[in-house]
Amino acid sequence: MPATMRYAVIMAGGSGTRLWPASRRARPKQFLALGAPESLLAATVRRVRAAAPGVMIVTAADQAAAAAVEAPGATVVAEPSARNTAAALGLAATHLVARDPDAVMGAFPADQHVGDEAAFGAVIERAFAAAERGDVIVTIGVTPTRAETGYGWLELGPPRDELGAGVAQVARFVEKPDAARATQMFAAGGYLWNGGMFFVRARRLLAELERHLPVTAAGLREVEAALASGDTVAADAAAARVYPGFPAISIDHGVMEKAHDVVAIPGSFGWSDVGSWAAVAELLARDAAGNTRQGDAVVVDGRDNLTVTDAGVIAVVGVSGVAVVRAGDAVLVLPAERAQDVRAAVDALTAAGLSRYL
Amino acid sequence: MPATMRYAVIMAGGSGTRLWPASRRARPKQFLALGAPESLLAATVRRVRAAAPGVMIVTAADQAAAAAVEAPGATVVAEPSARNTAAALGLAATHLVARDPDAVMGAFPADQHVGDEAAFGAVIERAFAAAERGDVIVTIGVTPTRAETGYGWLELGPPRDELGAGVAQVARFVEKPDAARATQMFAAGGYLWNGGMFFVRARRLLAELERHLPVTAAGLREVEAALASGDTVAADAAAARVYPGFPAISIDHGVMEKAHDVVAIPGSFGWSDVGSWAAVAELLARDAAGNTRQGDAVVVDGRDNLTVTDAGVIAVVGVSGVAVVRAGDAVLVLPAERAQDVRAAVDALTAAGLSRYL
Repeated sequence: MPATMRYAVIMAGGSGTRLWPASRRARPKQFLALGAPESLLAATVRRVRAAAPGVMIVTAADQAAAAAVEAPGATVVAEPSARNTAAALGLAATHLVARDPDAVMGAFPADQHVGDEAAFGAVIERAFAAAERGDVIVTIGVTPTRAETGYGWLELGPPRDELGAGVAQVARFVEKPDAARATQMFAAGGYLWNGGMFFVRARRLLAELERHLPVTAAGLREVEAALASGDTVAADAAAARVYPGFPAISIDHGVMEKAHDVVAIPGSFGWSDVGSWAAVAELLARDAAGNTRQGDAVVVDGRDNLTVTDAGVIAVVGVSGVAVVRAGDAVLVLPAERAQDVRAAVDALTAAGLSRYL
Repeated sequence: MPATMRYAVIMAGGSGTRLWPASRRARPKQFLALGAPESLLAATVRRVRAAAPGVMIVTAADQAAAAAVEAPGATVVAEPSARNTAAALGLAATHLVARDPDAVMGAFPADQHVGDEAAFGAVIERAFAAAERGDVIVTIGVTPTRAETGYGWLELGPPRDELGAGVAQVARFVEKPDAARATQMFAAGGYLWNGGMFFVRARRLLAELERHLPVTAAGLREVEAALASGDTVAADAAAARVYPGFPAISIDHGVMEKAHDVVAIPGSFGWSDVGSWAAVAELLARDAAGNTRQGDAVVVDGRDNLTVTDAGVIAVVGVSGVAVVRAGDAVLVLPAERAQDVRAAVDALTAAGLSRYL
């Protein structure tokens, strides 16, 4: 039996506003270079290539060209519309089985940061191996370093050593917790952050969709039929036809939380979802006063500020604990502790008739 | 005897950094439009034209062209180098006497704001009239509205009603006071802000320079001789030759504080020297939360912020009492109460090798 072919499927459909003004509707977070010379998407592609010879990017049609630039040689699958990650990974799995019925896919968000790439590579190698060994869904659980309320968590169950050392059953998924619950989980041990990465045979993922999201599965069968006949134009047309009817639901909610055989591999590799400006600050070097910056900046009489600019300079005098971001035609100022409230700025711009800046 | 010709001399030599990043070395404050559709210089020219048919602008050679654009029809006199206002007004007076030996000049900073232009016009009409009636130097004293430490003050002496109603001797000039002294003067009455505007016969100003700044006066005589022969090229050459030897001193320190016959006319016309971002905020309309802005902005959960942008948008979330200024390639953030500390940002940029942003 030939070695199973491994594919990395990169989910690049995000249109997040949490990093506005750097992220925009037309240029989501995965295209940003944050604390690194390359975009988050390019870094993701580079990291997964060693473990998975085939790289497929699922993205919005209007971002397909930009994604292709960031990931030379990758297959880009354009979604007809945004239907969240269950649909995106289902579409990817459909394309993969048409190519290779035994394909094993690893699904990766396009917009994460990894500090220790060697450790990351070792963990995803083990994750692919576990997904090949057993007919299971493998997820990566990031060893928590703080009582983080901004992430979903996993509760570990019994060991599943037959799938590899350290592999354990996932007892349950825990939604983003409140502070008390996060503190309790962090103290208790046996809980990991949900890194949003999944490894599974493509055929098995489609079977899970049959079980939990039948409308999605039925639509994808039409795409699969067209692909089986080698007619990619018909496949695209089928996707455009069926996609609007798909429920917009994440792979976590739509499949993972309901599937029976989900296992986790714990990993520790300097992971961040880069989900806020405060998270960006964590990726940057701090000076003696705790200030972090990307681009030219000076800070006078100020501590723990983040300055990010894509052009020109930022000067801060006598202010501490704020994020100042200049990107394109917009400037954002907010306290680092309110980094989750970028949404409030986005909403205010919309209400003020200034959505052209989003 | 024909009516004396009145000339407005506008001092546009400033290279101030107090409004960085809007003001730059290459584009000082007088070229900015702050709280108005026109530049401060253009507004100054417009205001003085009704009272003085002749308008002369004294400015740096490298700003002469820009000044001419802002003030169509004005005579622009370019200074060979910056030697502060005593030299600038001496050079202007020299040009004026060559044109009209009896010229009466009113000297105006190019970068002030006047809220009540009708009241301003009436006051400068009275100031010109007083300078024509007596052989005195007339200054405008702005009726104080607060115990301001950022301005110089005038102490009034005995009335000089023969020069016009309300005219009084200036007993002394008071340098920018500390808070206690400012509070005392404001409470006592009889003290006015020094508005930096002077009205005097050009020949009399040159006589004062002979007395108090003889090097300057001697140099200017060389310029005057060339002008008397009608040779403006020789006059410019003479100015270039003598200017480097002139002391760089203000007209206040160099002449006004030493002259014997200085009188003041009190005025109240919504005056501001626009000397800081806090002063700019005073010129703008406040919303219900006390926020002021020039250009597109939104403020969420914040009070008493100033946002100024020459392009794009500024969004502020959860911060109060700060000035956020975007101009060209730079962004400045500082508390409004530290508006005098823009200098600290400028110094820090210089120290960091980022003076290209100044």
